[in-house]
Amino acid sequence: MSYFNNISKIKYEGAKSNNPLAFKFYNPEEKINGKTMEEILRFGVAYWHTFTEDLSDPFGAGTAIRPWDKFTGMDQAKARVEAAFEFFEKINAPFFAFHDVDIAPEGDTLAESNKNLDTIVAMIKEYMKDSKTKLLWNTVNNFSNPRFVHGAGSSSNADVFAYAAAKVKKGLEVGKELGAENYVFWGGREGYETLLNTDMKLEMDNLGRFFHMANDYAKEIGFDAQFLIEPKPKEPTSHQYDFDVASGYAFLQHYGLQDVFKFNIEANHATLAGHTFEHELHYARIHDMLGSVDANQGHPLLGWDTDEFPTDLHTSVLAMYEILKNGGLGRGGLNFDAKVRRGSFAPEDLFHAHIAGMDGYAVGLKVAQRLIDDKVLENIVDDRYKTYKDGIGLDIVEGKTDLHKLEEYALGLKEINNESGKLESIKATINQYLLTTFAGE
Amino acid sequence: MSYFNNISKIKYEGAKSNNPLAFKFYNPEEKINGKTMEEILRFGVAYWHTFTEDLSDPFGAGTAIRPWDKFTGMDQAKARVEAAFEFFEKINAPFFAFHDVDIAPEGDTLAESNKNLDTIVAMIKEYMKDSKTKLLWNTVNNFSNPRFVHGAGSSSNADVFAYAAAKVKKGLEVGKELGAENYVFWGGREGYETLLNTDMKLEMDNLGRFFHMANDYAKEIGFDAQFLIEPKPKEPTSHQYDFDVASGYAFLQHYGLQDVFKFNIEANHATLAGHTFEHELHYARIHDMLGSVDANQGHPLLGWDTDEFPTDLHTSVLAMYEILKNGGLGRGGLNFDAKVRRGSFAPEDLFHAHIAGMDGYAVGLKVAQRLIDDKVLENIVDDRYKTYKDGIGLDIVEGKTDLHKLEEYALGLKEINNESGKLESIKATINQYLLTTFAGE
Amino acid sequence: MSYFNNISKIKYEGAKSNNPLAFKFYNPEEKINGKTMEEILRFGVAYWHTFTEDLSDPFGAGTAIRPWDKFTGMDQAKARVEAAFEFFEKINAPFFAFHDVDIAPEGDTLAESNKNLDTIVAMIKEYMKDSKTKLLWNTVNNFSNPRFVHGAGSSSNADVFAYAAAKVKKGLEVGKELGAENYVFWGGREGYETLLNTDMKLEMDNLGRFFHMANDYAKEIGFDAQFLIEPKPKEPTSHQYDFDVASGYAFLQHYGLQDVFKFNIEANHATLAGHTFEHELHYARIHDMLGSVDANQGHPLLGWDTDEFPTDLHTSVLAMYEILKNGGLGRGGLNFDAKVRRGSFAPEDLFHAHIAGMDGYAVGLKVAQRLIDDKVLENIVDDRYKTYKDGIGLDIVEGKTDLHKLEEYALGLKEINNESGKLESIKATINQYLLTTFAGE
Amino acid sequence: MSYFNNISKIKYEGAKSNNPLAFKFYNPEEKINGKTMEEILRFGVAYWHTFTEDLSDPFGAGTAIRPWDKFTGMDQAKARVEAAFEFFEKINAPFFAFHDVDIAPEGDTLAESNKNLDTIVAMIKEYMKDSKTKLLWNTVNNFSNPRFVHGAGSSSNADVFAYAAAKVKKGLEVGKELGAENYVFWGGREGYETLLNTDMKLEMDNLGRFFHMANDYAKEIGFDAQFLIEPKPKEPTSHQYDFDVASGYAFLQHYGLQDVFKFNIEANHATLAGHTFEHELHYARIHDMLGSVDANQGHPLLGWDTDEFPTDLHTSVLAMYEILKNGGLGRGGLNFDAKVRRGSFAPEDLFHAHIAGMDGYAVGLKVAQRLIDDKVLENIVDDRYKTYKDGIGLDIVEGKTDLHKLEEYALGLKEINNESGKLESIKATINQYLLTTFAGE
Repeated sequence: MSYFNNISKIKYEGAKSNNPLAFKFYNPEEKINGKTMEEILRFGVAYWHTFTEDLSDPFGAGTAIRPWDKFTGMDQAKARVEAAFEFFEKINAPFFAFHDVDIAPEGDTLAESNKNLDTIVAMIKEYMKDSKTKLLWNTVNNFSNPRFVHGAGSSSNADVFAYAAAKVKKGLEVGKELGAENYVFWGGREGYETLLNTDMKLEMDNLGRFFHMANDYAKEIGFDAQFLIEPKPKEPTSHQYDFDVASGYAFLQHYGLQDVFKFNIEANHATLAGHTFEHELHYARIHDMLGSVDANQGHPLLGWDTDEFPTDLHTSVLAMYEILKNGGLGRGGLNFDAKVRRGSFAPEDLFHAHIAGMDGYAVGLKVAQRLIDDKVLENIVDDRYKTYKDGIGLDIVEGKTDLHKLEEYALGLKEINNESGKLESIKATINQYLLTTFAGE
Repeated sequence: MSYFNNISKIKYEGAKSNNPLAFKFYNPEEKINGKTMEEILRFGVAYWHTFTEDLSDPFGAGTAIRPWDKFTGMDQAKARVEAAFEFFEKINAPFFAFHDVDIAPEGDTLAESNKNLDTIVAMIKEYMKDSKTKLLWNTVNNFSNPRFVHGAGSSSNADVFAYAAAKVKKGLEVGKELGAENYVFWGGREGYETLLNTDMKLEMDNLGRFFHMANDYAKEIGFDAQFLIEPKPKEPTSHQYDFDVASGYAFLQHYGLQDVFKFNIEANHATLAGHTFEHELHYARIHDMLGSVDANQGHPLLGWDTDEFPTDLHTSVLAMYEILKNGGLGRGGLNFDAKVRRGSFAPEDLFHAHIAGMDGYAVGLKVAQRLIDDKVLENIVDDRYKTYKDGIGLDIVEGKTDLHKLEEYALGLKEINNESGKLESIKATINQYLLTTFAGE
Repeated sequence: MSYFNNISKIKYEGAKSNNPLAFKFYNPEEKINGKTMEEILRFGVAYWHTFTEDLSDPFGAGTAIRPWDKFTGMDQAKARVEAAFEFFEKINAPFFAFHDVDIAPEGDTLAESNKNLDTIVAMIKEYMKDSKTKLLWNTVNNFSNPRFVHGAGSSSNADVFAYAAAKVKKGLEVGKELGAENYVFWGGREGYETLLNTDMKLEMDNLGRFFHMANDYAKEIGFDAQFLIEPKPKEPTSHQYDFDVASGYAFLQHYGLQDVFKFNIEANHATLAGHTFEHELHYARIHDMLGSVDANQGHPLLGWDTDEFPTDLHTSVLAMYEILKNGGLGRGGLNFDAKVRRGSFAPEDLFHAHIAGMDGYAVGLKVAQRLIDDKVLENIVDDRYKTYKDGIGLDIVEGKTDLHKLEEYALGLKEINNESGKLESIKATINQYLLTTFAGE
Repeated sequence: MSYFNNISKIKYEGAKSNNPLAFKFYNPEEKINGKTMEEILRFGVAYWHTFTEDLSDPFGAGTAIRPWDKFTGMDQAKARVEAAFEFFEKINAPFFAFHDVDIAPEGDTLAESNKNLDTIVAMIKEYMKDSKTKLLWNTVNNFSNPRFVHGAGSSSNADVFAYAAAKVKKGLEVGKELGAENYVFWGGREGYETLLNTDMKLEMDNLGRFFHMANDYAKEIGFDAQFLIEPKPKEPTSHQYDFDVASGYAFLQHYGLQDVFKFNIEANHATLAGHTFEHELHYARIHDMLGSVDANQGHPLLGWDTDEFPTDLHTSVLAMYEILKNGGLGRGGLNFDAKVRRGSFAPEDLFHAHIAGMDGYAVGLKVAQRLIDDKVLENIVDDRYKTYKDGIGLDIVEGKTDLHKLEEYALGLKEINNESGKLESIKATINQYLLTTFAGE
């Protein structure tokens, strides 16, 4: 059975193709520095946004038209798996990602939920045998059910902590079963609505314990996925404990978890926290904590997580620049944590949206690689910090100085010569690279 | 004497030029639909940001290195004129714009200020004879001097109102003298710090009177410039009366001024007000109120007016789309109300920044024109609203219906079929246009 | 049957009461300047937030525990009416407000929806006979059903326009039937997700036609409620046409509707638009457009409509100041468009929340009245604008001057003396009023 | 000589005083739990805002009328010291704080700057002998001079690093000389304008080295002040390395400095970072990192640092609650890093503003103490987390459990009972405390 029978496998047709259902810039097999675009970009399809999301919002019911919505319950869950693997194959996705409740409905009890999960996991495993699509990461949804109203690992209710822990246990087992490359923790309700009734220290301590237990269990069962924390500053809670990469890093260091976790960085979460996406990637990179990426974008004028498919090319160039400078994403990937707009409710829009995102990142990759090949930014940085390569600068970097010596040096300075940072010129150059990279295609 | 003696006249060298001091995309003489790029884009240089600005900020003294800073007072003002016309010629600017205090220092009295102004205006007039650069608009600065602490046309002090009015009188005379195409009112302090001590009704009524008097005087002296209001939501005041185009339009209608004014729309002011730049342009356009543009950009994560040179290509495409759909800007232009960053303090950066902005808008122009030529968005819109072309839809548009008929029609409807808005597909198409327009250059 | 059988009627017990289920500051019968607090404040209960809302959010299912949730369909709708009138009586509410779908479930067809509505409206009418609680306003929900995905009166689909119009027709009839004092238009989806596929001019023109037809029909049936527009800048759409009061006023003037409508101003919508609540009230007041109020508050650090119960006393003082200066709200009222937090899911929280809001506004009323009685702000404003009471200032206000006379006056000025605006002192005084008003209670 | 000769010493006159130049709520000698209000609140006057600030802004020249502005250079600096100590005495300030350049003008060379500083420091020391006012903290301004355009300890120029270090050396010596209780590092330019030309890793490493050297030198000279980092997210740079307390804590842990520093937390910086003030205080408190406070407030709708005097009583209650729960501020204090509005330019406004702030915090203190005495929030928290006091909850807290045990427990759970978080009720109670605390005064 086909769920998208009017759609053929999406192929690369080049920048001038008039076919809306073709890649214009993403050519999976094209090699960049010895690796294919597919190997570098490691695109993932988000199960929740693509197969479970109904496009409801706080002001209205769902608008999505989905062929699998003629089914309900476990039948619907199975239909989704069939549709998902058809979609993966047609969009040519190397990876996918899911939360437990995306793939299987919750039962009346934890045991029943686990049973439902087992059924679908087995089905997915079977499908994966005949598919090239691998599991980038999985996780459990510890935020949607009303029981998590006050949090999960940071709940004020110990029963909820236990329940959430049990779900993570299952999630780790599922991840191992399906060969997940990573396991993600997004703390949907791990934060607070108000400080007035909150014991933040107990909640954070408990969260530290929660993560340690998860790590212990993963080791016990031999599940060697990279653990990832996904920061988000707010929404649904007023304040989430993993506000941004830096506050997540503070937490991990404080609880001795910095060697266990890396970060899964989402573009829209970055901007909600007041950072550019590239800032969050860069901060993680220089602390060796860049694990994976949720490739989406927010609306710069809206104050909530819009989870749009990433089409801003300026951003995808800078994001790919950070990723390439990181030596790639390792076990991570570019997961499209993005949903079609409420008005884009046709099944075909799922393809258009993924094509837009994949093409956008392919553009980012090629432009960023050219910038690196030509050492455009490297040369600027090298020149800008040249005073640290010898003399007093080298002493500073090598730790061979102190305030006495520095004062003596400063008192002897005739004048201080700073050089222009040339931001406008640099931006113009990047635009030139962006506009000329596809000149010949 | 040359102030930029290491800089030659900036020329168009094409998209692949390695010369940072050349246009890559802005080719002034290239024709688009029968008009040259120069005629369509009507770029203006902002005197204040380019020749007066010292790059100080609230946390530090100015960093700008400017050859004319070896002079002071009227000598400095004259040196600036010389430098300005050298710059205009080298950057190939068809227009410039200024406030009174940008070009001439204030004296101890209004009379002395006016005398200083007369001297410099005469000098500028002389320079304009040998230059192709015209005056896009002028205005008076009724916000920097401490006397305007509580506003100008909306001051709580009638003496200040009178003083501000006198300055506008002079400004209109200067505009006439130099052949300004427009005259701009930006209400820097026309707003309030707090409602608690403010009589907003009196202030707005006074502002209405102020504008009527200015219009009367312009007619009296035969100064036929287009009057423009430049909206800004806040900063320096907590709330400015011309918050955005819509609130300016409410004001103009309320005071019977809607036929006298159009709007000068600034990108950074738009985003500070919570609108996209293209929204403000579009709203003005469909109300026939689009006069001129302050072409800059803000930083999406910073809450103040950063006045950056515009390099976001997505935005310049959409802005040029609105401008082309408006049939151009008429007497208006694209004024670079933009300053180099504090760290870009070298004189050369002024050239780099203008090149970045001019190239960016040239890209916007060419891509937008292709979108229009191919009716990309027109076809989408046409199809999307097709139900208004006959039947009940046509009745609605022609005013031939009422709630009775509409209820009868609605009761008879079997089902309602909406179609996808296809946002993701549209965005992908625009990106494709952006990336392929310069393929052959 | 009782839905809140553990709750007695809420009574006023004074500022020192330890009873959480008592009013501390709201004393309905207390007279202020000859009117009771109840008559001045005209509190309204929002049916949707109190009886229909399940406290779901985009990240999770509803948490609300409601006694009427054991029923479904029309039975649930009827149980809600019973619960509502019990609640109104116990909280001592003079008014309530609703959308059509809050009180009765939608049917499969418009006819069936109308039939459901008729049943419940008849029941409500019966209940109102024995209740003091009146209908502050009603409206129809033209945004939640998927058919309104692209708008209602501004839909791209004429069928949807017709359907929405039919719903408004019914809404006006229901309003007349129940004696509504006002009828509200909140344009939930009257805006756009993206300009790229939007014909804004057609949409706004259609919206103008929509409002005219509604007004014509209201006149036809003799429904004399005050029509109200409720501005909101964004959410659910990216940009809503009634962004704020000023843009709504621009719209009304443009379409000749300024005498038909006033504004229903919501605190949280004000702050999302970048305005203080008191700004929106003040702007409406001085344009004689202040109709009614949605009394809630937003979270200053969150970018979406949190619809919190209003507990910020600084704001309720300033809001009540504007309302008192307006001579009260006329047919309008203070409608609690506010919902309990997701974590406040117990039925009792509905009482706590309303008590918090009612007490807060009672505090605002009493403090604002004292400020007015003592002419605290009036004297400041009088003194501050005193220069407009004679001489050149009076000439300005009376329109007896022009730029010639003003220039002559300004040239003759020796010096300009501004006086301090004293903001800090004023704020300290208001705090003093706030803290001492309840000293004797 | 007197600079404020129309002002007498400000005295406490009680809540009903009509004297604007009296404390209404701040009674320095009143004892709260055995300590005087003066001892608990430890108010500090900010030298820069009160004696150096001219109230200029990016759009206009300074408006401040200051008696010491008839002097220039070192004479002005000396006059400021005289005025400052007169002000301290009249406002009854226990503390003050300054940057080097606030008290003494910079010379042409570092040596000359230091000489100027020595002169004024000696003068201040002399004045301090006869004054009760102590130095809360000092620091050096490493951001205003153009040499710091690219940063100080994170400058791209090693000469600037050395110069900044020399200034800190002097600052530490000055702090020791005057008995400063703390030494503050606010990284005004320690961040970046753009990542495109920035080596963030080198910059942060250098900053770590900078702080270590400062600490080493303080130890060497026996200056035992508490070192404080003052976080701010942005402005003047686009991104500052000490974005908020959490990111500062990440930095300190990463560079092994967490035992050397605490935080100086500013209210307005907190909100610019997307946090409530109380959040930042709380986070620091539970990590034992709360050092001192910059008591001001921002405008919730403006995106820059407005540095207003703190008059929001809801905030001062919650801030004092955190401070009291911290056992006070230790060596820290409540420094008014706040400036009068540009329109409040009279010398007298300096008094009004400090009175407003001091009264506001006195209110906060008394209300917070009553909340603590009555265990209002403690009881709520105790009850809310009661499940962690025995059974599975205690096992979790004591680290005696793992995912196996938790799963077993969760599988055995019949149902999960969460309790309402009662936010609305808690807020109503706090309002009641606020409004009734001064009932008898």
